[in-house]
Amino acid sequence: MRHTVAEKILQQHTQDTVSEPGQIVRCEISLALANDITAPLSIRSLEKMGATRVFDKDRVALVCDHFTPNKDIDSAEQVRIVREFARKMGITHYYEGGEVGVEHALLPELGLVGPGDIVVGADSHTCTYGGLGAFATGLGSTDVAGAMALGETWFKVPPTIRVDVNGDLGRFVGGKDIILHLIGTIGVDGALYKALEFGGGTVRDLDLEARLTIANMAIEAGGKVGLFPADQTTLDYLQAHGRSGDTFLEADEGAGYERRVAIDAASLQPQVACPHLPENVHPVRDVGDIPLDQVVIGSCTNGRISDLREAAELLKGKKVAKGLRLIILPATPGIYRQALEEGLMTTFMEAGAIVGPPTCGPCLGGHMGILAQGERALATTNRNFRGRMGSLESEVYLSGPSVAAASAVTGRISHPEDL
Amino acid sequence: MRHTVAEKILQQHTQDTVSEPGQIVRCEISLALANDITAPLSIRSLEKMGATRVFDKDRVALVCDHFTPNKDIDSAEQVRIVREFARKMGITHYYEGGEVGVEHALLPELGLVGPGDIVVGADSHTCTYGGLGAFATGLGSTDVAGAMALGETWFKVPPTIRVDVNGDLGRFVGGKDIILHLIGTIGVDGALYKALEFGGGTVRDLDLEARLTIANMAIEAGGKVGLFPADQTTLDYLQAHGRSGDTFLEADEGAGYERRVAIDAASLQPQVACPHLPENVHPVRDVGDIPLDQVVIGSCTNGRISDLREAAELLKGKKVAKGLRLIILPATPGIYRQALEEGLMTTFMEAGAIVGPPTCGPCLGGHMGILAQGERALATTNRNFRGRMGSLESEVYLSGPSVAAASAVTGRISHPEDL
Repeated sequence: MRHTVAEKILQQHTQDTVSEPGQIVRCEISLALANDITAPLSIRSLEKMGATRVFDKDRVALVCDHFTPNKDIDSAEQVRIVREFARKMGITHYYEGGEVGVEHALLPELGLVGPGDIVVGADSHTCTYGGLGAFATGLGSTDVAGAMALGETWFKVPPTIRVDVNGDLGRFVGGKDIILHLIGTIGVDGALYKALEFGGGTVRDLDLEARLTIANMAIEAGGKVGLFPADQTTLDYLQAHGRSGDTFLEADEGAGYERRVAIDAASLQPQVACPHLPENVHPVRDVGDIPLDQVVIGSCTNGRISDLREAAELLKGKKVAKGLRLIILPATPGIYRQALEEGLMTTFMEAGAIVGPPTCGPCLGGHMGILAQGERALATTNRNFRGRMGSLESEVYLSGPSVAAASAVTGRISHPEDL
Repeated sequence: MRHTVAEKILQQHTQDTVSEPGQIVRCEISLALANDITAPLSIRSLEKMGATRVFDKDRVALVCDHFTPNKDIDSAEQVRIVREFARKMGITHYYEGGEVGVEHALLPELGLVGPGDIVVGADSHTCTYGGLGAFATGLGSTDVAGAMALGETWFKVPPTIRVDVNGDLGRFVGGKDIILHLIGTIGVDGALYKALEFGGGTVRDLDLEARLTIANMAIEAGGKVGLFPADQTTLDYLQAHGRSGDTFLEADEGAGYERRVAIDAASLQPQVACPHLPENVHPVRDVGDIPLDQVVIGSCTNGRISDLREAAELLKGKKVAKGLRLIILPATPGIYRQALEEGLMTTFMEAGAIVGPPTCGPCLGGHMGILAQGERALATTNRNFRGRMGSLESEVYLSGPSVAAASAVTGRISHPEDL
């Protein structure tokens, strides 16, 4: 059988022969992941199983990033449970405090994921690592507990939707616009339990961070994984992050796709997902006059250094609109330090932004920027479900960092060209 | 009658003749203050009174600093109430979002308080402005509502305790150590409804920020106010913050003091207040071996630029102890920008600290660093009551920024000399 990228990776991790979508295969995993919300659930499951150890203390990652710095006693207790477990089990990759970054930004930065890996995480945006060519997917905390104990799990081989992106991206158009446009096209269930596989000339030219952004939102179309080929861009990124020995990875010629979707990158305008679904996507100029109370730049979707650079370029010498809160959360301490070094933090502070520590924070309505009733936010995050960022009577719009930065200055959703 | 500083200020604001402690006087106020926790209560009281305006829209300050960036829906709704009131009333000094600093650090920085002012705030640490020679005190939200409506309030003239501080402060000893030592000496009720008035050679040489730190904790000895004379240091500070027209202020020769307390600054070691009261004060070397889970540098007590410089000097080139969370919260956006410019942020991030936005946050167990059961923190804040920073089963120690920074590196409460 000629394999898609998803099938190829599953085949590399199983004794079974991967022969068709829908088949159940048992796979060894490369890494299991959980965070301060989900790890306590996984830990409880491990205890119920009577597990006294994890399958490999170097291949379990526990990142306390959601409600940290601890927002309240409950979240402090959650972190305590994870910390005590990590110490007891001797977990190598346990992160809290000043070492914490948003998990899906942190793990690639630390070189913990590479092409061909299978990563299971008790977090739906685990699919982010597909940007590196990893079969990475979110599972329930109990399933992740099983994987932590056994080092393996089962998958139903997903059918693959091939997304071909061709043409040159215009100014102020990037990875986020590609994925928002795709979700707008196929819908939030358009890739339900399917692999999205990205290819084409535009994808070849995309930097690694843009690929992570795209893969990150595969789940917003229901995708099991969002996969990129591993090419020289991938290997360069991995090498820069202290990893070696990775190899190219791509689909076999003639692999079987359930469907192909073509995106013309050249005609793409900056995209905005309007309330209350990530599929409610429109070009920024079509969303109308939408005044904003808050703008958030950060998260596992768009909190990386390229995103901060993009925002800083537009914020430089400008001021945040009166009455608007611009909250910028660099996704990892490494990104924070890099942004400091490049003077981006100075740009943000001079513009009147609030710069917070790395945390998922407001993205999931956790803390650090929750909305009151009637408030409206634009965020570079990944979900705009009703009440996602606070009150059920609030609204969240999604965009890339350029639209977010421009809109923070104008006070309403704006095309960066109009700044 | 020859007046203490407190009596002198009250006299300047009343038609009555201030003739003895215990007397009730009606005073015009200079400024009324509330925050995101207390302002909604004051606003409700104003509504009940049927007040349709505040006495002077330029002399009411509303600062949303406690649970911001909004930690949850409730705190977002609190801020919304304050914002809508501020808009309706046309309040000049309303602060939220990127303009927010910790109120008692922000108002002096903005030049809103000066010597001889009477400031009433719905926050117990309003006494901070005593460092500038202002009769500043915390009142309940309802009393502040009355002051907001009428521009006046009543006081019982407090008896004054004169604190004479003389001698040269040693290295790593500062304002926080003076006030901790004083509270340790006179107790948490040692100045109950009394004015603390600071004088002596050491006080003359103290920079303005150290004076604010000392005045800030007058309330921890039960003090109604903590007052410093206004001298050239005061006027220089005010001028640097855009204020002019202020004049010297000091007690009359032969003013009547209820009691005098002498502090020998030269013999003072860095001080630590142990759980669970600010009076449980010991020299740092006497507290024993106390491992720490968290260190907090920030707050209205010690979150100013001089505090950050002090911390950075010790953290430079060092690393935070493994497993310890060092949370640094510059108290205002202005301090944050200054710290950026001086490279302090880079020092903090390279040391492995978490740098957060200006907020009261963890000081009052609000958010941004809450303790789980069994955890122990050292903080440059002002209160270490049981459960103050989280779980009832957690502990808070208080110190100045040098001890805090040194302890963050060693992982246990340490004298900076031992770093």
